[in-house]
Amino acid sequence: MSQTDRLLSSLTADARGAPPSGIVEVMRHGHGKPGIVPLWAGEGDLPTPAFVHEAAARSLAAGETFYTLQTGLPEFRAALAAYHDRVYGPLFGRPFEPARFLVTGGGMHAIQLAVTAIAGPGDEVLVPTPAWPNFAAAVGIRGARPVEVPMRFGNDGFTLDLDDLAAAITPATRAIFVNSPSNPTGWTADAATLAAILELSRRHGLWIVADEVYGRFHYVEGRPVAPSFHHLIDEDDRVIFVNTFSKNWAMTGWRIGWIEVPTALSETIQNLIQYSSSGTAVFMQRAAIAALGDGDGFLAEQVARARTGRDIVAGALEASGRVRFSRPEGAFYLFFSIDGEPDVRRLGLRLVDEANVGLAPGTAFGHAGAGFMRLCFARGSANLQIAAERLKVWLDNGRSMG
Amino acid sequence: MSQTDRLLSSLTADARGAPPSGIVEVMRHGHGKPGIVPLWAGEGDLPTPAFVHEAAARSLAAGETFYTLQTGLPEFRAALAAYHDRVYGPLFGRPFEPARFLVTGGGMHAIQLAVTAIAGPGDEVLVPTPAWPNFAAAVGIRGARPVEVPMRFGNDGFTLDLDDLAAAITPATRAIFVNSPSNPTGWTADAATLAAILELSRRHGLWIVADEVYGRFHYVEGRPVAPSFHHLIDEDDRVIFVNTFSKNWAMTGWRIGWIEVPTALSETIQNLIQYSSSGTAVFMQRAAIAALGDGDGFLAEQVARARTGRDIVAGALEASGRVRFSRPEGAFYLFFSIDGEPDVRRLGLRLVDEANVGLAPGTAFGHAGAGFMRLCFARGSANLQIAAERLKVWLDNGRSMG
Repeated sequence: MSQTDRLLSSLTADARGAPPSGIVEVMRHGHGKPGIVPLWAGEGDLPTPAFVHEAAARSLAAGETFYTLQTGLPEFRAALAAYHDRVYGPLFGRPFEPARFLVTGGGMHAIQLAVTAIAGPGDEVLVPTPAWPNFAAAVGIRGARPVEVPMRFGNDGFTLDLDDLAAAITPATRAIFVNSPSNPTGWTADAATLAAILELSRRHGLWIVADEVYGRFHYVEGRPVAPSFHHLIDEDDRVIFVNTFSKNWAMTGWRIGWIEVPTALSETIQNLIQYSSSGTAVFMQRAAIAALGDGDGFLAEQVARARTGRDIVAGALEASGRVRFSRPEGAFYLFFSIDGEPDVRRLGLRLVDEANVGLAPGTAFGHAGAGFMRLCFARGSANLQIAAERLKVWLDNGRSMG
Repeated sequence: MSQTDRLLSSLTADARGAPPSGIVEVMRHGHGKPGIVPLWAGEGDLPTPAFVHEAAARSLAAGETFYTLQTGLPEFRAALAAYHDRVYGPLFGRPFEPARFLVTGGGMHAIQLAVTAIAGPGDEVLVPTPAWPNFAAAVGIRGARPVEVPMRFGNDGFTLDLDDLAAAITPATRAIFVNSPSNPTGWTADAATLAAILELSRRHGLWIVADEVYGRFHYVEGRPVAPSFHHLIDEDDRVIFVNTFSKNWAMTGWRIGWIEVPTALSETIQNLIQYSSSGTAVFMQRAAIAALGDGDGFLAEQVARARTGRDIVAGALEASGRVRFSRPEGAFYLFFSIDGEPDVRRLGLRLVDEANVGLAPGTAFGHAGAGFMRLCFARGSANLQIAAERLKVWLDNGRSMG
């Protein structure tokens, strides 16, 4: 056994089993290629707006650099409650209590906290797939077992069959992960589907981890937000929301988010924060408060931009006649298959070489993603038009060559 | 069962068992009391220096707000390697490879990564105590068992009996936590002790988690750093270092640190970072690079200031004749017992009320801390002189009343 193997073999199986990202290979392959349009990652092309990062700089200059409350500043929690009142209040039906919200070091940290709270070795957690892989990975590191519930692909894109979901429940099941609107598929659950999932939670005593990170990226006229568990739950329902400032306010690199729990859980989550991140910088929270309070305009522009982006790439791919997908109602990804191209891992590398466009292979999102590619359209039109044209040419050539 | 109890009972035992901080009670009790001198927390009274936070503000203004490498920027890792070459190089005997270092969301996150990598359910981890409680708590949340190895208190303060440590090793033992210089005791292991611990690691195949966060706060003339495992290890030794920018460069509130591992572990740790914090903000790393590159002067001032602080409070307490401690060689805490005052939890509250000084009860640092109080002396002289005088008066009054 080599020295490296000896050291690795002395690590826990959970740690050794943590999978590398399925997107990294294609990103490495395309990194630095001249002129490439990189649509592989889950982020837009706009930097954080000035009114947000200037709030952080002011806080830093004012010396707000000391330890702070693990929960988040009272004004941070109040700002989140006010934001939720504004966005979800009409259907939530009561004021949001600031004590429901705790600051986290990003959406991933919120997920880690949720998973630690509700699942351990021997437990199972249901994950409808295709899904952003990090949730299942966090479950695995915790020593619990993520159980894929493959969604069905048809003319309406991916849909979750509630019988499939119910059939996956065993005595070991502790929770269901619900990401709507979905990364990568754009699946957006309607209220009836969410209600049915909530009913499963109530009947079986299961937790729901609700990832509604893309809830504001919703392209249905007259609806400021996608259907949400906030519209359905009572205070004693077992629903934990994980969320982030990353997408709405172009803060992917910051690593600040929040977890929203029944107030009965606040103290436990606070302790778990103490022993993972030990809190989030005050100057980060000042920026987040600015985003929550003054960021509606920026967010509306981002959503309009993504909607235009969606229509540019969807139009080009539809025109090719070789691509299968449904135009998504939410999130900012197109998830599509190409006729005659089942090997998407290799396809990702080829599209870098042959079309100078960077996409993520669907295999990065679970077995159910095999045969699909993910394209992020949260970018400026000019850039997306170039990518769409290149993909169209590549698809047309492929056909003529075929 | 109440609604709250019902929700809590559906959480994992690991999460429910995460202990609240043992310092919080006294902090809440004293919070906002006029004129109180707060010496309960493990941080100094200086804000982050301008050259550090201005580097972050410049990075923000330049739009460095996107996702970044999970490992840390290449220039961040190179800066850490150069720092280690400078501080530890003469005894390390070879250049530090940048690949040994990965950025974390603070020292606590580094500990969480280390614990996840090396211990799981059924495993035991040895923790000499009194100790900063967060390490043991992280072990417990992971489902492993922290095993206290009580240090012995004598005329030289607390010392670690190596026979006690060896006797605590069982077939389930996976690791030893070594915090030197120690928070809270100031215990600073000499090279022979570290070598003996390393020998135990080699003989039994145990990991060492080396917390040398206070290594630069070392008050022995002519030595820029306390004895370190860096002076002893080979590349294949099972030693993981956890560290932070918090103490050296007055960045407690930032939440940025690093983990240093044998390069064989880099990929595994990188994956664990992906599924916990998903990396650390670029603008934070820019600040950290500034601290590493240009922060030697600031650090030297901080160390000199803490040394003066130590001598102020140690002198006053020695003069009282009622207090037992050894003047610490490292870290920035005085850990002392007061004759006739065994109930330190209550004593912490009384000292707030009766002396207007905030100290942390030793019980927050494990059973071995019972009977002791922790005082942080990383503060300006004027402030510490007030606290020292108040404590001396309180001690003298207590004696006359006794």
